[in-house]
Amino acid sequence: MVAGFRGLLEAIAGRPVAVVGHARPDGDCIGSQVALARVLRTQGFTARCVNADPVPRRLGFAAVEEDFTTVDGLAEFEGVAIYVDCADHDRPGPRLRERFPTVLGNIDHHVSNSLYARHNCVSSSAAATCEILGALFLDEDLPIDALTAQALYAGIVTDTGQFRFASTTRVTFQITAELMARGANPVDAGFQLYEREPLGKMQLLQRFLASFEMHADNRICIGTLADGVFAETGTSHEDTEGLVDYARAIDGVEIGGLIEELPGGIKASLRSNDPVFRVDQLAAQFGGGGHACAAGLNVPGMAASEFRCKLVQALEQRLAEVDAVRKS
Amino acid sequence: MVAGFRGLLEAIAGRPVAVVGHARPDGDCIGSQVALARVLRTQGFTARCVNADPVPRRLGFAAVEEDFTTVDGLAEFEGVAIYVDCADHDRPGPRLRERFPTVLGNIDHHVSNSLYARHNCVSSSAAATCEILGALFLDEDLPIDALTAQALYAGIVTDTGQFRFASTTRVTFQITAELMARGANPVDAGFQLYEREPLGKMQLLQRFLASFEMHADNRICIGTLADGVFAETGTSHEDTEGLVDYARAIDGVEIGGLIEELPGGIKASLRSNDPVFRVDQLAAQFGGGGHACAAGLNVPGMAASEFRCKLVQALEQRLAEVDAVRKS
Repeated sequence: MVAGFRGLLEAIAGRPVAVVGHARPDGDCIGSQVALARVLRTQGFTARCVNADPVPRRLGFAAVEEDFTTVDGLAEFEGVAIYVDCADHDRPGPRLRERFPTVLGNIDHHVSNSLYARHNCVSSSAAATCEILGALFLDEDLPIDALTAQALYAGIVTDTGQFRFASTTRVTFQITAELMARGANPVDAGFQLYEREPLGKMQLLQRFLASFEMHADNRICIGTLADGVFAETGTSHEDTEGLVDYARAIDGVEIGGLIEELPGGIKASLRSNDPVFRVDQLAAQFGGGGHACAAGLNVPGMAASEFRCKLVQALEQRLAEVDAVRKS
Repeated sequence: MVAGFRGLLEAIAGRPVAVVGHARPDGDCIGSQVALARVLRTQGFTARCVNADPVPRRLGFAAVEEDFTTVDGLAEFEGVAIYVDCADHDRPGPRLRERFPTVLGNIDHHVSNSLYARHNCVSSSAAATCEILGALFLDEDLPIDALTAQALYAGIVTDTGQFRFASTTRVTFQITAELMARGANPVDAGFQLYEREPLGKMQLLQRFLASFEMHADNRICIGTLADGVFAETGTSHEDTEGLVDYARAIDGVEIGGLIEELPGGIKASLRSNDPVFRVDQLAAQFGGGGHACAAGLNVPGMAASEFRCKLVQALEQRLAEVDAVRKS
């Protein structure tokens, strides 16, 4: 990994660097972009962060002093691209794919990474791309100042679900300890990330909780956001992030679901605590997909009430199948 | 600190040890008791955990294989007491105070610790008593097995609010890394602590969110749990834990409050993001107290509606005072 990173730095060969992240960036993407750009600059390189979508408001604290640009800002740019936190060449979106038909560097932690660049620094055992970058900077004794440390911290804390996901390892905590020593600030990160909810989001949560329906002996919990609730609470689809976890986090619930009633159909999210339920396969029954514990789907032209019945039926059948396997 | 701990171990001199925690135990208390008792046993001591109140259900994972007893189980006990996570001699409750008029050891991280024991291992710079114990065990090369590591992890993760409170330091993460290497399991801890909410608690949260009243240009958010809501949702006062944080975590809110309507009066909690608001002083106006950012109070014989008016008035005045100081 260190050799790969050294090779990448040599290959830049004085050219300007576009540090590219994926569309709809999350904390690990923004943190990786900012940290890499800042460290490259300390080594005399010119670097800019490029992303199809803007930095989300709550991640602003991880991008202090950093100007992000879209592909439109690259008209005059003649340099190389390093992709961070992107499992494949398409993740930054079609316009960046077109702008960078070849990619010099690929730094990522996704197990599905397709090694699409000339120099690939990929480790799927890392909890976050920011963990990989932190380890590389520390190993190579590259300067990590407080803003870089905080950017890396932002990526680690968000991609590990506050150090709770199975990807969290001893190394995650060791690197975080070193980032603390260099100025990372968990108090401010926690405040910016988790304690600045819009009032409307709380109202959305209230509506969601009030809609809970329990099925299959309280092993299934489904909540529904009725059409119009976004307008009433001044929120948008983006504000549903994390809501479905309230359905899943009830003691005894094995599958939690969120149904959004849209003008032209429904949108739904499914979550389970145990991959045995394969909610991706359940979502696939309705044309959706995802992971074993987290999946989503869209069904145009179906009413929420009709969809809820079909979904509950499918979920109950899955529980029965799993029960049968467990008993045998 | 290490010298103090060695002195404490020597002073036990082969006598049985009661590892005493505080009444209404939290994660740091239970984790400290379990970890210390287990490590003492590896050194040939007899140790038992004593607490006035039972281990809360959600902390059971940190007390696997450990039998807790109350003072009633100590009829035949002739030994010494080590108090953990107790700021003063009274914290374990009156019956344990009476049972142990002298205390051999005191291991704690509260800044207000009154050094009431013969051997005091107190560090207010530690994020948790479990952090102190983890450091001592590691320094002294005492055996930390997976159950001990998980007990210590439970104390650290709860007392730091998932590594978010200002008490979290580089050392916190370093010790946590070592606990991971010895079998601490953040995934299971996270599930047990944060993803097994009773359904009634979600209903309580829903009622609380639905009751939000905003004041002072949305800088104050107060929610009220009406008398009867506990019976309706099958919950008790204990289930209000953490609810008030939803009021405080709204963007722009500087003070959040929870009022519980009781048959004989009201109970309230106040939280702020900034110690400048001194919510302990605000609570004191109603006979309560606490910390600068977290305080509570009881007012017998007052109706919730009357109290809410008086509280909002007091909070608005405090905001005006702080604004005046900030401007000057």
